[in-house]
Amino acid sequence: MCPVARSLDVVGDWWSLLIIRDAFDGMRRFGEFQRSLGVAKNILTSRLKALVANDVLEMVPATDGGAYSEYALTDKGRALFPVIVGLRQWGEDYLFGPKEPHSVLADTRRDRPVARLEVRSSDGRRLEPEDTVVKKVPPSKIARPTTRKSSAV
Amino acid sequence: MCPVARSLDVVGDWWSLLIIRDAFDGMRRFGEFQRSLGVAKNILTSRLKALVANDVLEMVPATDGGAYSEYALTDKGRALFPVIVGLRQWGEDYLFGPKEPHSVLADTRRDRPVARLEVRSSDGRRLEPEDTVVKKVPPSKIARPTTRKSSAV
Repeated sequence: MCPVARSLDVVGDWWSLLIIRDAFDGMRRFGEFQRSLGVAKNILTSRLKALVANDVLEMVPATDGGAYSEYALTDKGRALFPVIVGLRQWGEDYLFGPKEPHSVLADTRRDRPVARLEVRSSDGRRLEPEDTVVKKVPPSKIARPTTRKSSAV
Repeated sequence: MCPVARSLDVVGDWWSLLIIRDAFDGMRRFGEFQRSLGVAKNILTSRLKALVANDVLEMVPATDGGAYSEYALTDKGRALFPVIVGLRQWGEDYLFGPKEPHSVLADTRRDRPVARLEVRSSDGRRLEPEDTVVKKVPPSKIARPTTRKSSAV
């Protein structure tokens, strides 16, 4: 199965991706997600349960020492950051009118919008879709570069 | 409305994102999408229609001069490339066993896996989710950098 399809099996759902977006924005409590999303409690409950089962979120003790657990992104969940940023930037670019206000994602140190996501080769060239090809790879050749600078196998 | 939510209104659907993935992989015909996805014709028809209505795909004359139209990504659709790559890389990293084979996206010139997507500041620093904040911005301040090197407003 294609990695894209497998990802969509886990997060390819309107509510799940918005819950993850809210988690990146700092929300941790059932009530926070519910107020933000305006979603029915039973739907929110099922989506949160699935995200915990898939190790995207984990339940942790309340930060204020209260009785209710909170939901926190796991490392696996945090790794979805580029996906959420990609959806945001596409929306900013194509789904708002020229004078229509919308929020932007800024970096806290410089207070400026983050750079646009770019697909690059392992040696740093910017790639268009035509510059890429999906390849079947045997298990022994799967290793990938973890940073832009490391060499691929 | 948040740009992420607005994007999901257009493409936040399992089938739509897989159709877009297939289009990036070079598919153009109804029958190609249907064979690839194994989806019911009526569902495929409705998703293709919605993607055309939202200017993600456009209908173009068949490349072989035949009677049937084909579906091609618009510029707006092509701009989803980082989103599809992000979903693919997350799946590759977290949803396959260590010895489980899967395809990889390679750049055609070097035949190596593409670099991992990274969220960066406008001056090129790699950003973690904690390094960013969503800001409400008035319309006059919306301009964003179009490349990593240009300065933000």
